[in-house]
Amino acid sequence: MPALSSRAHIMPPSPIRKLVPYAEEAKRRGVKIYHLNIGQPDIPTPKVMMDAFRNHDVSVLAYGHSGGLWEYREGLAKYYQDNGIHVTREQVLVTTAGSEAIIFAMLACLDPGDEVLIPEPFYTNYNGFAVEAGVKVVPITCSPESGFALPDDAEIKSRITPRTRAIMICNPNNPTGYVYTREEMERLRKIVLDHDLFFISDEVYREFVYDGKQHVSVLHLDGLDERAIIVDSISKRYSACGARIGCIVTRNSEILDTALRFGQARLCPPTMEQIAGIAALETPQSYFDEVMADYLERRDTVFEALSGIPGVSGLKPSGAFYTVVKLPVDDADRFCTWMLSEFHDNQESVMMAPASGFYATPGLGIDEVRIAFVLNSKEMARAMEILAKGLAAYPGRK
Amino acid sequence: MPALSSRAHIMPPSPIRKLVPYAEEAKRRGVKIYHLNIGQPDIPTPKVMMDAFRNHDVSVLAYGHSGGLWEYREGLAKYYQDNGIHVTREQVLVTTAGSEAIIFAMLACLDPGDEVLIPEPFYTNYNGFAVEAGVKVVPITCSPESGFALPDDAEIKSRITPRTRAIMICNPNNPTGYVYTREEMERLRKIVLDHDLFFISDEVYREFVYDGKQHVSVLHLDGLDERAIIVDSISKRYSACGARIGCIVTRNSEILDTALRFGQARLCPPTMEQIAGIAALETPQSYFDEVMADYLERRDTVFEALSGIPGVSGLKPSGAFYTVVKLPVDDADRFCTWMLSEFHDNQESVMMAPASGFYATPGLGIDEVRIAFVLNSKEMARAMEILAKGLAAYPGRK
Repeated sequence: MPALSSRAHIMPPSPIRKLVPYAEEAKRRGVKIYHLNIGQPDIPTPKVMMDAFRNHDVSVLAYGHSGGLWEYREGLAKYYQDNGIHVTREQVLVTTAGSEAIIFAMLACLDPGDEVLIPEPFYTNYNGFAVEAGVKVVPITCSPESGFALPDDAEIKSRITPRTRAIMICNPNNPTGYVYTREEMERLRKIVLDHDLFFISDEVYREFVYDGKQHVSVLHLDGLDERAIIVDSISKRYSACGARIGCIVTRNSEILDTALRFGQARLCPPTMEQIAGIAALETPQSYFDEVMADYLERRDTVFEALSGIPGVSGLKPSGAFYTVVKLPVDDADRFCTWMLSEFHDNQESVMMAPASGFYATPGLGIDEVRIAFVLNSKEMARAMEILAKGLAAYPGRK
Repeated sequence: MPALSSRAHIMPPSPIRKLVPYAEEAKRRGVKIYHLNIGQPDIPTPKVMMDAFRNHDVSVLAYGHSGGLWEYREGLAKYYQDNGIHVTREQVLVTTAGSEAIIFAMLACLDPGDEVLIPEPFYTNYNGFAVEAGVKVVPITCSPESGFALPDDAEIKSRITPRTRAIMICNPNNPTGYVYTREEMERLRKIVLDHDLFFISDEVYREFVYDGKQHVSVLHLDGLDERAIIVDSISKRYSACGARIGCIVTRNSEILDTALRFGQARLCPPTMEQIAGIAALETPQSYFDEVMADYLERRDTVFEALSGIPGVSGLKPSGAFYTVVKLPVDDADRFCTWMLSEFHDNQESVMMAPASGFYATPGLGIDEVRIAFVLNSKEMARAMEILAKGLAAYPGRK
């Protein structure tokens, strides 16, 4: 048989792929697993959104505009304006989820062999998109000790080469929950201008900011109209991960034109899900208030519990619904596997994502895990109790 | 501002993009346009499919499996089995439309700079996907005089180079409506084996075969288990173009594993549309019988009309719902523009797709257009009448 492409060989699998069989085997043994390993919340999707599917009057499920339904782009532009991001509907291009927004941004801005700087740990799927686009991810290492704040400018600039074309951040951050400060955003702004780079900002967790912090969007910054690109998604905003609706937002008309041509090749994003997306724009503020209060309670529950576990360290994040914490273990991959294959407390265990998969630098994150606050506070509290007991019993404890 | 990538510069726009402003301007002048330029049929989507949206009981619109919902993959496997294509559910991977199936197949099989042979004229978006994947499309020229049958083996083999990794066909063909014969498929099978290639077959028009012809799938051929890949979509089968649901079907487990890793990077295809896709599997045979009878009548109406127009030539296709015909004009691009900007018959005109955009070889197809049978027979007849009058009045007539 002919050999597959080299990108087929280097395309990374899901970082939790190795753990999945152990989780399935544990379930076969009757063990209940608390899944803190994925960003799939248990939060209900707004009723107004799900009702839009129920109440449709579509008889021919037709292609929409390749850049998204105009009514939706209009509504999204208003949403951004309400968030202090002043764009027109022409500056919002609907994509098939944030995933497609990221790959369109990479394809538009970077050639094969070009480099994109990304603070690590980062959302692992950036690696996959980089392989597809032939792009090299160059990490800017951030550490749990500083709560995953950016390192100083000299450290960031030391990673810039003649092939660097863009800086990409996720803000609020997946997997760390870190929210970049105004000062950090201004520093990145200056680096981007000084080194003639694009600035791609994944802002799918925009709504999830706590403790009175302010989210600074890349489109809030001055002088970046031609360089700044938001990649966004409604997956987390409305707990609608399965909708696969996202967008690219930029004031750079050449990028919009290029993204539209990528969009024309694949014809259009899903039509029914855009209709539901239009309806979701009418989600009442009370929905978001409740969801934020819920996530805040979950975060505080988790950190209260973690602070009582000997050897566990990490700073409380102010955004998203994840945290990366250090565990007193030899190897988080081994520990997470052991939790599923060897351990249970009263027939219950916990699945977490080992953090090494979120780092590009080999050897980093090996004693860290990402915990997603995707279950209610009571379940999160129980999961932390199980984690504490697991750590106490784990033979590879440090 | 930093320059965009070179792929941004070579990414082709939609081939009818230049015509769109003329069509819009004509509409502003009160001219009714018969849109024969796109593959968006007026056929209703099966009620059972649209009802599935109405009757859902989803409260959290969650991610599904990256390879598609297992219940859907099971149902699709049965659909293929019913079509004599014996595959298991593991050999069917659901994608976000046929578009994603094509790009996954290209990314898995070809490296940047590798070549894929495609009979021309071909579906123009293959060009876009090839740019995204960094792949070179090498055309195998087919001519309207032969009804777009394949040329002889020597001609096909003359296009093979050390970089050739795959042959890709669309069968039944968009834009020509041609259905490859068993003999042609066997010839391609032999070439693929002799030259160690993959064989990618876009079969989204599988159902649309007339005149008692038999559709031969690439997975009907012997000895190709490791080489054959179907890329498919439900867009045309159920007139559900906006659903964005397709799949990759192959018996090659390495390709399935690679496609799954591409799938994991983008998480999953749209969940609600898969639920509707599951329901669509229950579409009664009477729906397809009526749709086929309708398309057959449209085709015959078009060809009866075309045969009465002096200077128009083309063979009646046996599949899909398109035809590419030669017109007695200097330049079909100019003619199609003129039809929108200068001509009308009783305030009505016709929009068609100039065929040059479907050829990779420069200079080919310049006096050809693609006509899509996407309106009912009465409207198609009226559109052909307008075309005849337009051709009679066109100053650039040959």
